[in-house]
Amino acid sequence: MDPTDAQTACFEAGIKFGTLYHQFAGTPVSPESADSLGRAMEEAIENQPHCESVTVDVLVDELEDELVDSAADYTELTGRFLEVAMTIDYEGTEVRTRMDMQDGYPLMRVEDVDAGD
Amino acid sequence: MDPTDAQTACFEAGIKFGTLYHQFAGTPVSPESADSLGRAMEEAIENQPHCESVTVDVLVDELEDELVDSAADYTELTGRFLEVAMTIDYEGTEVRTRMDMQDGYPLMRVEDVDAGD
Amino acid sequence: MDPTDAQTACFEAGIKFGTLYHQFAGTPVSPESADSLGRAMEEAIENQPHCESVTVDVLVDELEDELVDSAADYTELTGRFLEVAMTIDYEGTEVRTRMDMQDGYPLMRVEDVDAGD
Amino acid sequence: MDPTDAQTACFEAGIKFGTLYHQFAGTPVSPESADSLGRAMEEAIENQPHCESVTVDVLVDELEDELVDSAADYTELTGRFLEVAMTIDYEGTEVRTRMDMQDGYPLMRVEDVDAGD
Repeated sequence: MDPTDAQTACFEAGIKFGTLYHQFAGTPVSPESADSLGRAMEEAIENQPHCESVTVDVLVDELEDELVDSAADYTELTGRFLEVAMTIDYEGTEVRTRMDMQDGYPLMRVEDVDAGD
Repeated sequence: MDPTDAQTACFEAGIKFGTLYHQFAGTPVSPESADSLGRAMEEAIENQPHCESVTVDVLVDELEDELVDSAADYTELTGRFLEVAMTIDYEGTEVRTRMDMQDGYPLMRVEDVDAGD
Repeated sequence: MDPTDAQTACFEAGIKFGTLYHQFAGTPVSPESADSLGRAMEEAIENQPHCESVTVDVLVDELEDELVDSAADYTELTGRFLEVAMTIDYEGTEVRTRMDMQDGYPLMRVEDVDAGD
Repeated sequence: MDPTDAQTACFEAGIKFGTLYHQFAGTPVSPESADSLGRAMEEAIENQPHCESVTVDVLVDELEDELVDSAADYTELTGRFLEVAMTIDYEGTEVRTRMDMQDGYPLMRVEDVDAGD
């Protein structure tokens, strides 16, 4: 069957998560550059269609923990250093999504689908 | 409300498309390297959860057209050179998706959602 | 033969350019998000070793020209929208480099090598 | 001063390494997909100017070690799973380079510069 609006809204939400993660994973990042990277990620993804809002926290405490025993003063961005919340609106269906660490993996998930009527 | 299995299946499908596009967009590509790139894209995405099958065509004719007036013999991978079909299976719901050019844009879309019962 | 310090400095400069371009090419970008993206690119690359300074201009006028005839209000970052200047310092050898468009291609080049003595 | 041919050759070598690493870091990879990814990386980078040859080993043993205690059957490509050798030829200067793990970091380096006369 053709997708419903709510299913399309969820598809659109997934696209944004895949984009956000795989565009920016691997970026050199330090506690000092965490803020500018998070801001750029938010504004980049908000350009995409049906994207109401994106909040990206690049986790400075986790970066500091990673670097305390390291010879380097930066690392590569990966899911361990990210918390993301995103709201998609497609034809009146609002989908709220999150990514954070669960059992050692960055888990992307749909938290709420609101068909709006 | 919590997402249905069909909505989660669509979310998972979207993640794969965002991953595929933004991991590989920008890769140096020529008619000669089109095949190995397409194969790597398919096998990379098939690693992801709930991904039944991925078919990627890197369009050699379109690459040749792009390069005929060019001083270079390669270009950067972008949506204009791609056709992708993907099937996701999440808890028995099968979602078929495609990406190809529509009106000058690479359009990712859900073609069919089959709840399987 | 082993590389000289000046040759290593040029190698390091090249690494930064390849990183900057291929990490961020494909990012969704609009005139509104150009500034945050440029800032994140600068700070990301400045994390890398031997990198004195990076200046990235994401070209708003070029983005506006691209979008004037477009159905979309954003595009993907590519070399056409970028001007980059970078200074590398390796063991006292300073290398100044640039990337901008030349004859339709984004050209990365070494402008000056200063062995410092 | 303007760069010498040998310095430009080293700059070109660096560009290829930055490209290779930051284009493909983050790609979903498993022991099964390691070969196709390595092949695509080689052929992609060999498209770039002055690139004589590229050899990429995606390290299956290292991937298997990573996954043995993991709930997932794939991971993200990073330097720990890569060995790369590359030869650049610029105006008769041949530069041989490598990347592999040294002291816990993926180290990119110039092994030999041969001005050819």
